[in-house]
Amino acid sequence: MRGASANRTTGADEPAWSRDEFEAQLRAKGTAYHIHHPFNVKMNSGGCSREQIRGWVANRFYYQINIPLKDAAILSNCPDRETRRRWVLRILDHDGYDGAEGGIETWARLADAVGLSRDELWSLEQVTPGVRFAVDAYVNFARRAPWQESVCSSLTEMFAPQVHRDRLASWPEHYPWIEPAGLAYFRSRILLAQRDVQHGLEVTLAHFTRRDQQERALEILQFKLDILWTMLDSIEKAFPQ
Amino acid sequence: MRGASANRTTGADEPAWSRDEFEAQLRAKGTAYHIHHPFNVKMNSGGCSREQIRGWVANRFYYQINIPLKDAAILSNCPDRETRRRWVLRILDHDGYDGAEGGIETWARLADAVGLSRDELWSLEQVTPGVRFAVDAYVNFARRAPWQESVCSSLTEMFAPQVHRDRLASWPEHYPWIEPAGLAYFRSRILLAQRDVQHGLEVTLAHFTRRDQQERALEILQFKLDILWTMLDSIEKAFPQ
Repeated sequence: MRGASANRTTGADEPAWSRDEFEAQLRAKGTAYHIHHPFNVKMNSGGCSREQIRGWVANRFYYQINIPLKDAAILSNCPDRETRRRWVLRILDHDGYDGAEGGIETWARLADAVGLSRDELWSLEQVTPGVRFAVDAYVNFARRAPWQESVCSSLTEMFAPQVHRDRLASWPEHYPWIEPAGLAYFRSRILLAQRDVQHGLEVTLAHFTRRDQQERALEILQFKLDILWTMLDSIEKAFPQ
Repeated sequence: MRGASANRTTGADEPAWSRDEFEAQLRAKGTAYHIHHPFNVKMNSGGCSREQIRGWVANRFYYQINIPLKDAAILSNCPDRETRRRWVLRILDHDGYDGAEGGIETWARLADAVGLSRDELWSLEQVTPGVRFAVDAYVNFARRAPWQESVCSSLTEMFAPQVHRDRLASWPEHYPWIEPAGLAYFRSRILLAQRDVQHGLEVTLAHFTRRDQQERALEILQFKLDILWTMLDSIEKAFPQ
């Protein structure tokens, strides 16, 4: 009995990872980032049709327009004013403000560049049920989870600069029919993602300190990786060619 | 039977109020604003002790620190980007941003001025259960209600400039022991309340258009008036002299 129970230790009984080791474990999750999804690989190697690119842009737009709702849900759950003062910048970045058009509008310019009309884009008619469910799962998580868990879930941004750089590097060559100015969204997110990750990591490394909590953080990050991955599964299925 | 049912018409069967009449009905709710609460009347006529003023400042602080959570909940429920771009200003006003200390800090300066230490203020130890329940009811409403209903609930701000002006006019005379600079919060809110009311009314007048909806809007406004009134009931009871 003693041996059996000793073998069934939970994370709570194990020593916590050091801060560096914990961060390394979080970063190791990058192997499950949607950058490795077959549809993304195909997209960045020039294998997608115009319809597939448009389908991806139209579907991913549903994610974009939900990001401010997700971030506002985190704000709404966060009693720490200093954290809110930093977090609210994400809402301003996305919705825009006087003098800055914002990420949603920049994504709409990508849609212009790939030949989707604004009406088509905003109608959300091309958004698949699978994409809706995945994105809604993310927003609902942010509404209900402790704010530090929601912050942790945002850490897929650790892996985002590379996916943006890949698109900036490969799309102009593979898809010369896309107006290069339309790629501004990818460019804009590289620096913003780095700033956001710094804050997200600060919160996560400070909050999840026991081993079982650190393991929970990895599960939360996996949940968010699953959301991004599932979106591409659904898009791939809906736009087979 | 016919006569009886004709007399039991619901709002849905009655003609909608005109926009002006609806706004007048909303404004008529001002008679139930906490400006008329005995504790507020006493406060503005110089009848409160230092302990009562401090008790009010400490309790009302719980409302102040929850306002950004309430406003973020509204943002989080609002799919309209243009509305969010205007609404987010309320969060910036309250939490502050680079170059602006924000309403929570301005309230903390009022606390300084009435002789409450920052530790006492932020400890929330003086906050009564009744005040907590009332404020939490407001935040929870904003989390769950359609965003237009939450916006409507904010319309007690229609009546706020007068309560602020009353304090600015009466406190320096009645409470010379309060450092006048501490009253900056009341001053700052007069213009902001007017801007906020303009937006809140636009949303409310546009959204609640059928008679039954207009009557629902009045009920929502009454709910918010009840929150403010109940807070003063609880404060009055906790600080009898």
